[in-house]
Amino acid sequence: MYKCNSRRLQELIEQFSQFGATENGGVTRLSLSNEDVLARNYFCECCEELGMDIKVDDMGNIYAVLPGKKDVPPIVMGSHLDSVEKGGKFDGVLGVLTAIEAIRTLKENEIELDIPIMIVNFTNEEGARFDPAMMSSGVISAKFEKEKMLQSIDKNGTSFKEALQASGYEGDQENRLKEALAYIELHIEQGPVLEAKQLEIGVVEGVLGMVCYEITVTGQSNHAGTTPMTMRQDPMIVTSKIISYLHEELGKIDEQLVFTFGRMNVSPNIHTVIPNNVTFTIDSRHQKPEIMQKVEDILNNLPTEDKGCSIKPVKLWGRDTVYFDTHICNEVERACQSFGYTAHRMFSGAGHDAQYIAGIVPSAMIFVPSINGKSHCEEEETTFEDCAKGADVLLETVLTLQTKFSMGETYTLH
Amino acid sequence: MYKCNSRRLQELIEQFSQFGATENGGVTRLSLSNEDVLARNYFCECCEELGMDIKVDDMGNIYAVLPGKKDVPPIVMGSHLDSVEKGGKFDGVLGVLTAIEAIRTLKENEIELDIPIMIVNFTNEEGARFDPAMMSSGVISAKFEKEKMLQSIDKNGTSFKEALQASGYEGDQENRLKEALAYIELHIEQGPVLEAKQLEIGVVEGVLGMVCYEITVTGQSNHAGTTPMTMRQDPMIVTSKIISYLHEELGKIDEQLVFTFGRMNVSPNIHTVIPNNVTFTIDSRHQKPEIMQKVEDILNNLPTEDKGCSIKPVKLWGRDTVYFDTHICNEVERACQSFGYTAHRMFSGAGHDAQYIAGIVPSAMIFVPSINGKSHCEEEETTFEDCAKGADVLLETVLTLQTKFSMGETYTLH
Repeated sequence: MYKCNSRRLQELIEQFSQFGATENGGVTRLSLSNEDVLARNYFCECCEELGMDIKVDDMGNIYAVLPGKKDVPPIVMGSHLDSVEKGGKFDGVLGVLTAIEAIRTLKENEIELDIPIMIVNFTNEEGARFDPAMMSSGVISAKFEKEKMLQSIDKNGTSFKEALQASGYEGDQENRLKEALAYIELHIEQGPVLEAKQLEIGVVEGVLGMVCYEITVTGQSNHAGTTPMTMRQDPMIVTSKIISYLHEELGKIDEQLVFTFGRMNVSPNIHTVIPNNVTFTIDSRHQKPEIMQKVEDILNNLPTEDKGCSIKPVKLWGRDTVYFDTHICNEVERACQSFGYTAHRMFSGAGHDAQYIAGIVPSAMIFVPSINGKSHCEEEETTFEDCAKGADVLLETVLTLQTKFSMGETYTLH
Repeated sequence: MYKCNSRRLQELIEQFSQFGATENGGVTRLSLSNEDVLARNYFCECCEELGMDIKVDDMGNIYAVLPGKKDVPPIVMGSHLDSVEKGGKFDGVLGVLTAIEAIRTLKENEIELDIPIMIVNFTNEEGARFDPAMMSSGVISAKFEKEKMLQSIDKNGTSFKEALQASGYEGDQENRLKEALAYIELHIEQGPVLEAKQLEIGVVEGVLGMVCYEITVTGQSNHAGTTPMTMRQDPMIVTSKIISYLHEELGKIDEQLVFTFGRMNVSPNIHTVIPNNVTFTIDSRHQKPEIMQKVEDILNNLPTEDKGCSIKPVKLWGRDTVYFDTHICNEVERACQSFGYTAHRMFSGAGHDAQYIAGIVPSAMIFVPSINGKSHCEEEETTFEDCAKGADVLLETVLTLQTKFSMGETYTLH
């Protein structure tokens, strides 16, 4: 059992938080931006110092490999270095930096492993610059078509392809992650549960299924001053009624169900004009397909008309719950126990590269607590102590797995 | 009694609708734009052909005067030539063009008047390019400070001052409308009442008082997937509840009361993020101050907190009901009767230059029906027949007033 160096990890986190540092203590490190390239360069430098070999694939994913005594597929750790606009210092990058700290601890203790250990940095996980999120883990796991992804455009009109070429991180398709014995991604929870329950480590069993609907309510635009109330077809009134109704009805289904009306656009959005159109989204997530079905049934059974307005729900997308590898989850939990860290089995409500990688490699995730549950904002925070505990668990899990794999054990995809 | 030439008026409306014509039969003729300048030039040309003298004041308001036999203050007709983005062919411009048609009918019939007749085009009534609306009638009636108005900036960063100078329509302050015997503004109703009641002319007795509040509901932004429902402070849920509550409560006050939730902005407005802030407006209008007070009481008595969100109503502005000159209204109604046109006494829910001019000149307005009540859109429509009826009533009112004024009658401001 090896403990990581908490102080060294803190320094590393602080070094990386300089790449794209914002005024209020966050980072803006959009994928393939100059700031991201600086972080990538420094990542490569750190790995090379540890004697790791660097390869880059055609999506800009970086793989650093510490060779093992045996020529077998590696155990992989990692996450992503990119951030959202005005994001925090921990989201994504922590999974890469705890992996570096784990290898540093190995080296420091002169441990030589049979199985190669890899650290991966996935390109454009956030989707903040180029839609969609988890783009490059999605491409290598055949969820997305590469050609479409290359054409994704940022708000300045630059394509992913152009940005990738300009970054100097366009590598070869043959370098893509294909075979690996396990993938373990450490990440901040991005939610309030671990902190609220005063627990140290989340053992992530999977990623929640979700649906996202867009509901369009269309009425009739008219002058706010000249149109009697009885002659209106006001979609704002109808929308408020729908949201209150859905809040009530979905709230009855299951206490684990979450749903959010996150985006709403009103047209023409002028204070003196009755809107003609209100469009809003509802994002809903739950582990069980039968619960998600109930949500969809309620959405699809909304009346098609109310107060002269039409109501149209459209499913934007949905995903099934992704289940991680039980063996790896068990090893993560055992690692927690061996350090005496309190562990909590949970599902991730947020999406992560691991959910796509789980399609090609047996995978699991480790969560560390987010203070106030905040992420994707400059106030995002996790104590360095908790980060180090996460690194301990990550390393211990890798060591246990490498012993098992070295003895011939393998996990298969289900 | 002289009838205007319906065909000639139609041609004139069609000519003006070419200045800034949009694909779908509307106009975009933002104040002091090239399109507006073309319309202004043609307006001056039409008036000069009729032997009228043109003057321009320091806000770009254009005054065309047909001299009378007596050197006394004029009777004024008019409105504005500017439009909103993708507006209609009638809003504003119709008040100017029916005035031209009225003068053409006078000339055709070789009628010489004792009292001078003026047509005015007010600059930037819409406020669509430069905030606020009714800017220049507001300046000359001392509602707005000229210096502030000159600094109003359009979305491209051009100031009103720069646009005014570039237009060639910056005149002298001494040319401002100061004294006049009466001001009569013909306008489309911009509402559905006349059409619904199958009436031909609205005799406008005033402009409704209004208040506009902005209500800000502030909660806590968090990840849509990772935050349990019980740990949320979601301003969208609270906002829906408030809107439904206000719709219910304000709906009980008075059937003439109108209120509109026209503008709503959600922050950060991302489908996967619980909003931290929803800001929306409520615009409410009624003739009676005691009714408006009830509305304000309800708004100011909203709870300051709900479900962990703060609720803050702020009054953006309010105006009292403006009453037009009863004598002029009576003359408008009599003119309708003399033609056999059905007339309806009503208040305007929309703001117009006349509401400011009423502070310096005895004023009234004439409404013609809007098809489907639509305005500020390309579908805005009024039949040419109704336009001509409006012109008949406008001319007849002016003729009656000029006879009365010529015999020494005057109306005073109240």
